[in-house]
Amino acid sequence: MVSGAGHDRVSCEALTAVFALLGKRWSGVIVGTLLSGPARFTEISRQVHGVSERMLSERLNELASAGLIERTVLAGPPVGVEYRLTPRGEALRPALDELGYWATEHLSAT
Amino acid sequence: MVSGAGHDRVSCEALTAVFALLGKRWSGVIVGTLLSGPARFTEISRQVHGVSERMLSERLNELASAGLIERTVLAGPPVGVEYRLTPRGEALRPALDELGYWATEHLSAT
Repeated sequence: MVSGAGHDRVSCEALTAVFALLGKRWSGVIVGTLLSGPARFTEISRQVHGVSERMLSERLNELASAGLIERTVLAGPPVGVEYRLTPRGEALRPALDELGYWATEHLSAT
Repeated sequence: MVSGAGHDRVSCEALTAVFALLGKRWSGVIVGTLLSGPARFTEISRQVHGVSERMLSERLNELASAGLIERTVLAGPPVGVEYRLTPRGEALRPALDELGYWATEHLSAT
């Protein structure tokens, strides 16, 4: 039973979906890191403080399944795997910029 | 050991903080609901599909502790409790608008 206006209901469902995807621990931060450009696993691991290799690997797979990032195997040397945002992931930039701005303004004092 | 530029490191820490706060299930959606204006517990409960009363109560307390929302006891009749965003919570509007817009554009097809 929904009594809100159509606009509110759509927003609520959209926010539920986006937080289900990005609200898992590390996911939003991983996307935020890749906004600076493509990065190797070890580079991402260094930027995302406290994440284990196993957890980072799991989150990268989830984000790839959701179509936000893609992996490229680098022939090397040194051989390796590079991750980059897809256009869908890149489209999150304005939202993550706003969230980062808000956090810097409103959470730094707590 | 952080090798990124200063800007990247700040953004990463800010995003970690904001997702720790809003990434918990329901929290972002509750704030999104209150962007439409003050609401009573039962009204929020109706907008946030699937949340239990106990969980909603817990999340509202967390968001109040974080300074994002405030509660007002209404003398009535009918007596009740109304929740509204603080200026800090209201400042999330641009970020949540962007997230909702992204979700509508990029998640609706999945």
